[in-house]
Amino acid sequence: MIPRLSQASAPLTERVRVIDEHGQAREASIPAERALTIYVDKHELVTLMTLGAQPEWLVLGYLRNQRLVAALSEVESVTVDWEVGAASVRTRRGIERIAERTAQRVVTTGCGQGSVFGGLMEDLDRIRLGEAVVTQAQLYGLVNAIRLQESTYKSAGSVHGCALFAGERMLIFIEDVGRHNAIDTIAGWMWLQDAALQRGDDKIFYTTGRLTSEMVIKSAQMGVPIVVSRSGITQMGLQVAERLGLCAIGRAVNKRFLCYSAPERVRWEPGLAD
Amino acid sequence: MIPRLSQASAPLTERVRVIDEHGQAREASIPAERALTIYVDKHELVTLMTLGAQPEWLVLGYLRNQRLVAALSEVESVTVDWEVGAASVRTRRGIERIAERTAQRVVTTGCGQGSVFGGLMEDLDRIRLGEAVVTQAQLYGLVNAIRLQESTYKSAGSVHGCALFAGERMLIFIEDVGRHNAIDTIAGWMWLQDAALQRGDDKIFYTTGRLTSEMVIKSAQMGVPIVVSRSGITQMGLQVAERLGLCAIGRAVNKRFLCYSAPERVRWEPGLAD
Repeated sequence: MIPRLSQASAPLTERVRVIDEHGQAREASIPAERALTIYVDKHELVTLMTLGAQPEWLVLGYLRNQRLVAALSEVESVTVDWEVGAASVRTRRGIERIAERTAQRVVTTGCGQGSVFGGLMEDLDRIRLGEAVVTQAQLYGLVNAIRLQESTYKSAGSVHGCALFAGERMLIFIEDVGRHNAIDTIAGWMWLQDAALQRGDDKIFYTTGRLTSEMVIKSAQMGVPIVVSRSGITQMGLQVAERLGLCAIGRAVNKRFLCYSAPERVRWEPGLAD
Repeated sequence: MIPRLSQASAPLTERVRVIDEHGQAREASIPAERALTIYVDKHELVTLMTLGAQPEWLVLGYLRNQRLVAALSEVESVTVDWEVGAASVRTRRGIERIAERTAQRVVTTGCGQGSVFGGLMEDLDRIRLGEAVVTQAQLYGLVNAIRLQESTYKSAGSVHGCALFAGERMLIFIEDVGRHNAIDTIAGWMWLQDAALQRGDDKIFYTTGRLTSEMVIKSAQMGVPIVVSRSGITQMGLQVAERLGLCAIGRAVNKRFLCYSAPERVRWEPGLAD
């Protein structure tokens, strides 16, 4: 059963007047940023600051990645109303012990949505990632696809982008002012797809942001065993990746990259690097 | 009365083994990342993910910027123990209604420490910023000082830097895996200085990160009326800056910059831009 979803998209950029270094007034684009308070069965859960590209997918993915909802069928509807900055979620049977499960607060490293509820780390050892590998040619194709993508970042900057790939084929690209919102939006989108697209174990996750522990954990929760970033990795991101056997690739720009963990998941073709 | 502070610094980078695009194993530096749980009078407050450069200043600045502690004299001691990842804060008289005041959660855009407790926005209208201006020459001096700064970013990447300036003179430079940690650390450091350095109204705040609403609010709370970033601004960052009359300057790289708000605080010398 697919939940009913509103379609509350909104403009992603705003034109503003700035003064440049020559003292000249001109226009520039900046990313939109909206407060979205999630209510689950009238219980206020959290307020996210978001670009607002796909708020319904974001809400679904947030509930999924916080493991508050285990299956899409538990959700009856998601209704986003930008007038009041609210996303109202109705579940079919309620969420057990919701107050208790959202009480513990961990403020994390990542951009945006930096708060993960307790218990996320505890479940790491239950995750079993599939056997996926990425060829070096696919990796280069993926980096190039990102380079060609038209984006809010190109027009306004100050957003993070995330994408999901099957090999070098981009399935979806999402930007947000918080990169955790971007990955959660992809998690929500995946839930709404058919079985082949819902599978994570033959997919590759790309992010413009750093590979922090939360990014690695969220990718693993989605079952995606390979993550690629143009940025680097933090110490805890690496620890979690190694523990999970997740392949973390960073500094991926043009032909360059560094593989931080699980190099057995890369089908090396070093001749392509020259 | 100055609180007693431990001095629990720790290595900021770690050498790890990576494989590059040529299939060659080599070493790379990555930033350290540590969980630090803050306990105030034995009440567990929050867990921050931090580089750990100056954890005691971070804890003081966090309490200050969350407005849980109004004056340094309220704090008796801050003791950081990396063995257990804990910062134990003792106050002289306790914090009133601490559970209630830290119950509301807003997950924000910024990197790291993205959670601000409720009420922060409500106090904006009480903030009165001083008359400070920045000359274009000072702005260029400041950007150059940042360029010359030796940093964890240069050796390991994946951290945000913040600095406090008096004109073009850098007073302190702090990096962290979360940029909110970096600004909070500066807030903590300021509290420990003499009266001239505690003043914000003749200072300039620099950040490598985006000018989000929280960054603007935190700068204003510290009384600093000018913020400069190499990155851009978000919509809510701009709204808050305009409401406060705070001068937000972004895209500051080499001779280029954009002034997003309060251009009357810039003493324009456009001849320097050529």
